[in-house]
Amino acid sequence: MRRYYRGHDLQRIHSVAEMAAAARARLPHFAWEYLAGGAEDELTLSRNVSDLQAIGLQAHTLRPCAEPKREVTLLGKARPLPIGIGPSGYNGMLWPDADLALARAAARRRLPFTLSTVSNATIEAVRQAAPELDFWFQLYPMKAAEMQEDLLLRAERAGCEVLVVTTDASILGNREWDRRSFARPRQLSLRNKLDVLLHPGWMKRVLYPGGMPVLGNLAPYIPPAERNALGSMKFVSEQMDTQFSWDKLARLRQRWQGKLVLKGILHEEDALQAVALGMDGIVVTNHGGRQLDGSLSAIRALQRIAPAVAGRTTVLFDSGIRRGTDIVKALALGADAVLSARATLYGVATAGEAGAGRVLDLLAEELKRNLQLMGCDDINALDSRWLC
Amino acid sequence: MRRYYRGHDLQRIHSVAEMAAAARARLPHFAWEYLAGGAEDELTLSRNVSDLQAIGLQAHTLRPCAEPKREVTLLGKARPLPIGIGPSGYNGMLWPDADLALARAAARRRLPFTLSTVSNATIEAVRQAAPELDFWFQLYPMKAAEMQEDLLLRAERAGCEVLVVTTDASILGNREWDRRSFARPRQLSLRNKLDVLLHPGWMKRVLYPGGMPVLGNLAPYIPPAERNALGSMKFVSEQMDTQFSWDKLARLRQRWQGKLVLKGILHEEDALQAVALGMDGIVVTNHGGRQLDGSLSAIRALQRIAPAVAGRTTVLFDSGIRRGTDIVKALALGADAVLSARATLYGVATAGEAGAGRVLDLLAEELKRNLQLMGCDDINALDSRWLC
Amino acid sequence: MRRYYRGHDLQRIHSVAEMAAAARARLPHFAWEYLAGGAEDELTLSRNVSDLQAIGLQAHTLRPCAEPKREVTLLGKARPLPIGIGPSGYNGMLWPDADLALARAAARRRLPFTLSTVSNATIEAVRQAAPELDFWFQLYPMKAAEMQEDLLLRAERAGCEVLVVTTDASILGNREWDRRSFARPRQLSLRNKLDVLLHPGWMKRVLYPGGMPVLGNLAPYIPPAERNALGSMKFVSEQMDTQFSWDKLARLRQRWQGKLVLKGILHEEDALQAVALGMDGIVVTNHGGRQLDGSLSAIRALQRIAPAVAGRTTVLFDSGIRRGTDIVKALALGADAVLSARATLYGVATAGEAGAGRVLDLLAEELKRNLQLMGCDDINALDSRWLC
Amino acid sequence: MRRYYRGHDLQRIHSVAEMAAAARARLPHFAWEYLAGGAEDELTLSRNVSDLQAIGLQAHTLRPCAEPKREVTLLGKARPLPIGIGPSGYNGMLWPDADLALARAAARRRLPFTLSTVSNATIEAVRQAAPELDFWFQLYPMKAAEMQEDLLLRAERAGCEVLVVTTDASILGNREWDRRSFARPRQLSLRNKLDVLLHPGWMKRVLYPGGMPVLGNLAPYIPPAERNALGSMKFVSEQMDTQFSWDKLARLRQRWQGKLVLKGILHEEDALQAVALGMDGIVVTNHGGRQLDGSLSAIRALQRIAPAVAGRTTVLFDSGIRRGTDIVKALALGADAVLSARATLYGVATAGEAGAGRVLDLLAEELKRNLQLMGCDDINALDSRWLC
Ligand SMILES: Cc1cc2nc3c(=O)[nH]c(=O)nc-3n(C[C@H](O)[C@H](O)[C@H](O)COP(=O)(O)O)c2cc1C
Ligand SMILES: Cc1cc2nc3c(=O)[nH]c(=O)nc-3n(C[C@H](O)[C@H](O)[C@H](O)COP(=O)(O)O)c2cc1C
Ligand SMILES: Cc1cc2nc3c(=O)[nH]c(=O)nc-3n(C[C@H](O)[C@H](O)[C@H](O)COP(=O)(O)O)c2cc1C
Ligand SMILES: Cc1cc2nc3c(=O)[nH]c(=O)nc-3n(C[C@H](O)[C@H](O)[C@H](O)COP(=O)(O)O)c2cc1C
Repeated sequence: MRRYYRGHDLQRIHSVAEMAAAARARLPHFAWEYLAGGAEDELTLSRNVSDLQAIGLQAHTLRPCAEPKREVTLLGKARPLPIGIGPSGYNGMLWPDADLALARAAARRRLPFTLSTVSNATIEAVRQAAPELDFWFQLYPMKAAEMQEDLLLRAERAGCEVLVVTTDASILGNREWDRRSFARPRQLSLRNKLDVLLHPGWMKRVLYPGGMPVLGNLAPYIPPAERNALGSMKFVSEQMDTQFSWDKLARLRQRWQGKLVLKGILHEEDALQAVALGMDGIVVTNHGGRQLDGSLSAIRALQRIAPAVAGRTTVLFDSGIRRGTDIVKALALGADAVLSARATLYGVATAGEAGAGRVLDLLAEELKRNLQLMGCDDINALDSRWLC
Repeated sequence: MRRYYRGHDLQRIHSVAEMAAAARARLPHFAWEYLAGGAEDELTLSRNVSDLQAIGLQAHTLRPCAEPKREVTLLGKARPLPIGIGPSGYNGMLWPDADLALARAAARRRLPFTLSTVSNATIEAVRQAAPELDFWFQLYPMKAAEMQEDLLLRAERAGCEVLVVTTDASILGNREWDRRSFARPRQLSLRNKLDVLLHPGWMKRVLYPGGMPVLGNLAPYIPPAERNALGSMKFVSEQMDTQFSWDKLARLRQRWQGKLVLKGILHEEDALQAVALGMDGIVVTNHGGRQLDGSLSAIRALQRIAPAVAGRTTVLFDSGIRRGTDIVKALALGADAVLSARATLYGVATAGEAGAGRVLDLLAEELKRNLQLMGCDDINALDSRWLC
Repeated sequence: MRRYYRGHDLQRIHSVAEMAAAARARLPHFAWEYLAGGAEDELTLSRNVSDLQAIGLQAHTLRPCAEPKREVTLLGKARPLPIGIGPSGYNGMLWPDADLALARAAARRRLPFTLSTVSNATIEAVRQAAPELDFWFQLYPMKAAEMQEDLLLRAERAGCEVLVVTTDASILGNREWDRRSFARPRQLSLRNKLDVLLHPGWMKRVLYPGGMPVLGNLAPYIPPAERNALGSMKFVSEQMDTQFSWDKLARLRQRWQGKLVLKGILHEEDALQAVALGMDGIVVTNHGGRQLDGSLSAIRALQRIAPAVAGRTTVLFDSGIRRGTDIVKALALGADAVLSARATLYGVATAGEAGAGRVLDLLAEELKRNLQLMGCDDINALDSRWLC
Repeated sequence: MRRYYRGHDLQRIHSVAEMAAAARARLPHFAWEYLAGGAEDELTLSRNVSDLQAIGLQAHTLRPCAEPKREVTLLGKARPLPIGIGPSGYNGMLWPDADLALARAAARRRLPFTLSTVSNATIEAVRQAAPELDFWFQLYPMKAAEMQEDLLLRAERAGCEVLVVTTDASILGNREWDRRSFARPRQLSLRNKLDVLLHPGWMKRVLYPGGMPVLGNLAPYIPPAERNALGSMKFVSEQMDTQFSWDKLARLRQRWQGKLVLKGILHEEDALQAVALGMDGIVVTNHGGRQLDGSLSAIRALQRIAPAVAGRTTVLFDSGIRRGTDIVKALALGADAVLSARATLYGVATAGEAGAGRVLDLLAEELKRNLQLMGCDDINALDSRWLC
């Protein structure tokens, strides 16, 4: 008789997994696939979760902690929780103005939100929608120097204090199941077209208002004739700098005054190199199992990397965060904070800002309860002794 | 063609698993869920069982033991078996006067029964129902000192020789599936209301006689207007002392003349601290996987804790006991006895006292047969050499 | 489209698993359950097989062995294969005169057959049916000294050269699923009675000729009034010597001039004790997972025991043998030969002597092919270097 | 909603697994079984894949490699990819002139193709169909010296530069499920006959043109009266030299001037012996799990063998290659190249040359993408540091 809730009251959605089920029901298959799927056989996708689940937690009772401290200082700034929203592209496919919804949900909780280079909303629109937002911008290095420079200028102007450079996805991973939704690039298969028709809510919300969402953020750089969904996708894939290197990163480090975070690190050597180049932070991630299938799980990578760079740079973690306990485990293994991507996207796909907010609240609540149950009164005290 | 027995002859129920199936059939879903479910993804719940199953047993044939000794001395008193009934709240939801049924089943077999603070029956009623009972009382530390003191006085008056202080559940675990039965706190979802109607036997037995059972034991302290099911639940959750600490435990130790047992230990450091504070016993437990999901299995915790405190305090174990072999394994790993919670609750939900008794008898029989088959003529001789 | 063969041509049954499926189809559920089931949760039953499967084999190509030597010297006698048929009781429930069928199948291949104490055929009938048989007798130690002595005398007279004393089943294991076939001891449940009616072939073959088979071998000792199926079962269970010990074994060793083999060893200490008492052989076995559930798998026990007694006694192995490779693995781990029980019983239940013979031939063929594929030209050369 | 593509556009087949599904749909069951199945319980078949999947990959981002070098020097010759098509017999059952189709697909990509001794096409026909082909010939050692010598002469004349001697299949593995397709040798069971009728496309393509394909390559040596499918099979199995040995290999080494590769090595001792005898290469393989079931997975064998012979002979690998990452893993563990068998056969069974080509292209693309994603700009640089 166990069944997830199917209605509209977000308070009755009790976990990220339940939110995922809700999102799945609301999205046409192709959009769900894009969101939830991984590369090839999804070995890495599933290990991201199973390797986290395999870690055991220690608990000490009799250490009262009614209000465990969850505040952390991250990249030089106090933040209420060790959680941020990570970058994701094409969010507009999930919900109208999904980027703005995520930004508002984050802002309201004083958590950072990272806008992707390939977002549907512009940097400027995000700032306008959430003036108080702790605003991070994610850069995919671009071939055209002027385009990249313009993006950086816009980010600066919008007050982005943290720049996240993603290095693991200039070459697109082999997301087969995603491609199987299409008969030809950008043309859905018949089955998937029919399936879209079975989701009138989504059509009304997402499709009718403006057709398939375009890459708003990059629109200025796209030749007007190609500013449709198909054209802009092609444009982007051609503009990605597949030659991005440590040298170029060094130059970017000089260029960017704010905090610079390198996203896409899976090897301790690279982490050390990032430290040497003066990175303010790194994100240990395998891009949610969407890139190299077979790559070790992100949490196992963290286990190797964190000790190597401990205290010398800020360590962020993503890929597989679905529970408060996942956050506890990542922090106990040396991360300073985690980024949420799919988790909050499930929320936004279900109910826009409110849905994303519900996910953040669930993670925050779980985190609080976990610390209480573990008898840990300060999240900053977590280390590997809390694991087993 | 394998199928569990579905009828009413308890002698045809041959295992705890079969009793669980019988209970499940008799209970409305929400009650079954409350009874059998665990926290979040139920990782700990399932590891409690699988980690026990993974342990191998050694057997020596040619060592005749027609009547292996199962008697143990526990907390200074000889007992026929290393088994007690552990505390559980709200038993009245499973069977009318379930607390009394459990108490009588235990008393008849000269085994201890532990009454929960949040029981439906009062301490006094239990004593009256089972005058010979080896009566243990489980205390949830309370904010209001007078209320706690009054509970202790009542327990003393009722002749409870052992006080079990539970320290791992002042903050309620995140039992999502339990919550999913409800549309709002204490208000069943429509599906679950319909499901109740499909269980007329349960309605007749449990619901009609007196409505949803109230917290009889705490009733005196609850403002009369709130003495209904919903109100008393709220009352309790507010009264739990979430600030209970080693200091307060030390004071409790001074206050309580009888045996004092600390329930909720998962870490060897805490076990040693308990010894230092003069605890007569500890219960190594993770509350049946109902609190911190991801917490290591209780049997693995026992493996670490028992050697650390060997000989210096009494070590009880629960969480996952479903078979005689589970008891053998726990004892071989250093436990002095085990507590049964879900196992006997499955019995009581199926057939009241007789059902609980059947479960105790099954465990006792299995234990005897196990020892015979292992060639172990005294349960007190079990140690890790019997495992592999 | 994969499906096992369902017809009557034994040559089309290509493996023991396929024979098991055939037996299952031909037997009423209760008889299949008795045959194939194990104790309690069947942990040991399933590990017997999975632990064997987990062992890897090494192969050397370019070592031609068209006719690998499979002959072994076992208990002082050359035998064509390191395989014998192990003892099993109540075979008559599977096929009329199943004991005789097994004996003939073994005799025809010059392999030993072990008659169980609780057989349906008498020792004398077996000898008469298979005059050339390499005849082993399995003794369950009996309370009544005269009865046991008479059994030994009859075995001697029938020319049994090997006496197998079983020590692990004087106390019956907890075979729950077997018991679930019955409403009361020996009285089938309604479902099972109906299921018998669905197996007219079995009824005609087994049931009509003489009713439920009685314990022929023990019949002389059973009071005439109790010589029915129910009565004889009760008689046997009361006569089992549950006090059998190393002392009594020492006396039996003095009494029995022929080869004496101890069946039921799982611990290296006991194996050494058996050597000390002059046992000609031991059988490393857990009784096919029918006794102590949780007991380590027989092959893991062999891994510990064989090195301890290497060269000092004959080591037989059973519990889990379903393939030629299982035999290879057991021998490589130190066994001198294996016993087949369920495997050949599946054959006999399917087609009497021919079925049992087919199973022996399958194992022999597989063994030959395995040795060829491994490049091992003499089965006596197998050792742990062939494993990985 | 996930479902593999079922139509005819090969570009929509995105992985070897999807190609396998397509092949399965197009083939009658018996042919699919022959192609995809393994020996006995298929333990080795499934471990070949699962052991490869269990290996983790390391990735370094920020090392740009737009065009990673995939060229290798193999057996003294530069080749565009470390991939060849391995030998397989009876391909004609999958597609008309399947050998020619495979040869052409390989030739067009400048990859080697290995023709099996038991091919349907003759050596000469292959050479004619693909004049530029990098042509390898696989020899099953034959009893009749003249026949073998004639095969070698023909291979020389056809310009085969590499001779692959297969040593692990002179004795046929126990492919039970394959045999279960037949009521008698070469006579399909009724179910399978009906199933053939359900595959009219296959009948039209494969069966009508010329009946069951005969062993074209060996036809000259088969007595004319036996030159049908059944007769030639019998002939072959009788002609296999089951006495092939290191001595005979030494003589073959003297006889064959070209490159000589030994296929069927699973043990480091044998690999060393192959080096000692001057083999130009070895193939670490377990024949795709079709021979000795229980044999360790090929990738685990590679892990032991490659370090032992590193730099002293060319190490090829097969058994389980389904993905670009599998190739990466094999090379990182010391293989110089891999052979594809089932993978390309799935392609040929789906769409002849185009299908096989699609599989090679998929592997090549995956390989390229993998190297890019790993940040490895030269496939020759792969070593165990890329694994974890
Ligand atoms: C739909 C989707 C789009 C994404 N787009 C981007 C992106 O534009 N830029 C980026 O750096 N990462 C992107 N990512 C990767 C995420 O930032 C993050 O690394 C990953 O999703 C973490 O795994 P998890 O979502 O399973 O926790 C994307 C992920 C998803 C699921
Ligand atoms: C329905 C239920 C109610 C419980 N209530 C209490 C309680 O009131 N006090 C307490 O100390 N433990 C309580 N527990 C925990 C048990 O005492 C015990 O630690 C746990 O159930 C052991 O796991 P097992 O039942 O799987 O063996 C409860 C457990 C269950 C299943
Ligand atoms: C139906 C059945 C009856 C058995 N009866 C006896 C018996 O009478 N005496 C005995 O020593 N072992 C008996 N055994 C145990 C077998 O001799 C043997 O140890 C066990 O079956 C080996 O496991 P396997 O059958 O899975 O290979 C019996 C086993 C089965 C399956
Ligand atoms: C249908 C089929 C036929 C084969 N025939 C031959 C053969 O004639 N000669 C040979 O050396 N290997 C033969 N093999 C083995 C392959 O060359 C190769 O070792 C094996 O298939 C590798 O496993 P994989 O296909 O799972 O990658 C055959 C394999 C298959 C699947």
